[in-house]
Amino acid sequence: MASVNRQVRLARRPVGRPDDSTWEVTSAPVPQPADGEFTVRVEYVSLDPAMRGWLNDVRSYVPPVGVGEVMRAHAVGRVHESRHDGYKEGQLVSGHFGVCDYAVSDGSGVIAVDESLAPPPVWLGALGFPGMTAYFGLVDVGRMKPGDTVLVSGAAGAVGSIAGQIAKLSGCRVIGLAGGPEKCAWLTDELGFDAAIDYKAGSVGRALHGAAPDGIDIYFDNVGGETLDSALAVLRKNARVVLCGAISGYNATDPQPGPSRYLSLLVNRASMTGFIVFDYLDRFPEGMAAVSEWIRRGELVTREQVETGGVEAFGRTLNMLFDGANTGKLVLKTTADS
Amino acid sequence: MASVNRQVRLARRPVGRPDDSTWEVTSAPVPQPADGEFTVRVEYVSLDPAMRGWLNDVRSYVPPVGVGEVMRAHAVGRVHESRHDGYKEGQLVSGHFGVCDYAVSDGSGVIAVDESLAPPPVWLGALGFPGMTAYFGLVDVGRMKPGDTVLVSGAAGAVGSIAGQIAKLSGCRVIGLAGGPEKCAWLTDELGFDAAIDYKAGSVGRALHGAAPDGIDIYFDNVGGETLDSALAVLRKNARVVLCGAISGYNATDPQPGPSRYLSLLVNRASMTGFIVFDYLDRFPEGMAAVSEWIRRGELVTREQVETGGVEAFGRTLNMLFDGANTGKLVLKTTADS
Repeated sequence: MASVNRQVRLARRPVGRPDDSTWEVTSAPVPQPADGEFTVRVEYVSLDPAMRGWLNDVRSYVPPVGVGEVMRAHAVGRVHESRHDGYKEGQLVSGHFGVCDYAVSDGSGVIAVDESLAPPPVWLGALGFPGMTAYFGLVDVGRMKPGDTVLVSGAAGAVGSIAGQIAKLSGCRVIGLAGGPEKCAWLTDELGFDAAIDYKAGSVGRALHGAAPDGIDIYFDNVGGETLDSALAVLRKNARVVLCGAISGYNATDPQPGPSRYLSLLVNRASMTGFIVFDYLDRFPEGMAAVSEWIRRGELVTREQVETGGVEAFGRTLNMLFDGANTGKLVLKTTADS
Repeated sequence: MASVNRQVRLARRPVGRPDDSTWEVTSAPVPQPADGEFTVRVEYVSLDPAMRGWLNDVRSYVPPVGVGEVMRAHAVGRVHESRHDGYKEGQLVSGHFGVCDYAVSDGSGVIAVDESLAPPPVWLGALGFPGMTAYFGLVDVGRMKPGDTVLVSGAAGAVGSIAGQIAKLSGCRVIGLAGGPEKCAWLTDELGFDAAIDYKAGSVGRALHGAAPDGIDIYFDNVGGETLDSALAVLRKNARVVLCGAISGYNATDPQPGPSRYLSLLVNRASMTGFIVFDYLDRFPEGMAAVSEWIRRGELVTREQVETGGVEAFGRTLNMLFDGANTGKLVLKTTADS
């Protein structure tokens, strides 16, 4: 058991891609809980594309992480010492504990992790924010209905891989966009996608016309950029574009061009709508019930890529997201016994 | 009374701005109605930005006007000769009669014009498709509610001038974007807009921050281009962008850049939705009742700019739209007694 609390702090706001100068690892004593609090030994930290946005000093849906502050992150850990009636030592929980070995919590935003349903890393993926993002993005924002043709970009990622499967389980035809033949094979062979397009292999536009000759009803977008334009070109009447993310431009230092085909929304009476999963906290029980049931039945495949190296490995692990180096949910194991 | 039927036909698809080579005027005998039909002496033809789109040979919400065909147009005219039980000679009607002196109709899409409510040109504006576009764009697509801050571009045009007034009459705060001090003064002094921004006078972005320091809830967009980006920069949470048109790019020969700030939709959980007024034909009675009542009470100002010169003047009158040379609804009088 670690005797110090290593914490990853934002050392300098990155311009473009984060690098070693972005982060610093500090050490502090293991914290003590006050009355009504508990401490958590963090075991798994979630890596999310949205983290890149939190590093920019701009007004957004959450305040930026301050320079010198511990990096914000969702994590799973075990209660280490408790002075809170609702939590007892040894209990497994998830919450916004940050990139560190030990965190203090008063229970806000903390949920109990049921290992009998799925191992801890799944609670950062399908049973965590990525899974809820996929669920509410499709069900609520995308107004998904059986028979829809659904296109998902970043389809081999944490959100996309769950979104595609939820759409498929809901009676939709599903096409995934991913980088490389291995990811594409995983989508069709393991996850049951109807088709997968390797965006690195040639014209996405041409491939889309082939895979969706009658167009698409929903585009669940995780990547933005030219791919968004290709999707806009194949919208059907009353289509819904769900804006979940735009990872292709997150590290850009130049202004990124907008979707030049946006008037496809007009002629097709279509919509493009952004959303933030945090707005759905009240409805998480609905989403968790649905995803849990699919997992219980063995109908939903979850995949986690667990990297090791402790909190020190946070910076290079985060950058794997921008390199497309992960398949499924990317997680960092922070305990040494890996 | 004209003894021939002059018809304006599409001679050649324009590249960029339409010019003299785009149109040809042909003459034919005044048509005779068959059984169940009537003929109309067209008196006023509507000029609409959407017409430019109908000239392009692309898949859209209506088929393009074919080369050699009479130009599609909404118009008001008087029944000339009737073999239809529902229409009698001398009756004033509106419909898609085209740019011509005489049209044949079986009554499809034709509505009776009540001159006691408003003179004929108003039936091509506030009581025609532009008025219904404004109404359903705000009420249905924009989900307008009292207290919203509503920004309207092309605010001195046929749709924009009605949209802004409907928003104001519905309890919203309304800001208009228009070109030049005269139009802006008309918006605030005559139509009751809370503010007007002259987009030719300087930075729209800066002016918007001044006019809407807390941001906007609805952007009713008629123009597209950089103005759309400026509006995206000031969206409030849950804002709705209503895509009605994009006149700034209709004559462009180069690909037009898309809205580079579209991720404002994401962080603000906002939507951008296109619509076509023809989809609302079933609900026109609702929209007509509302607009008629506002006109009856004298609460809605309608303004029509009636150009003369007969059907031969169609081409140059249409181009006035792209030059911003109209205030309110642009109409061409096709009868000689003007």
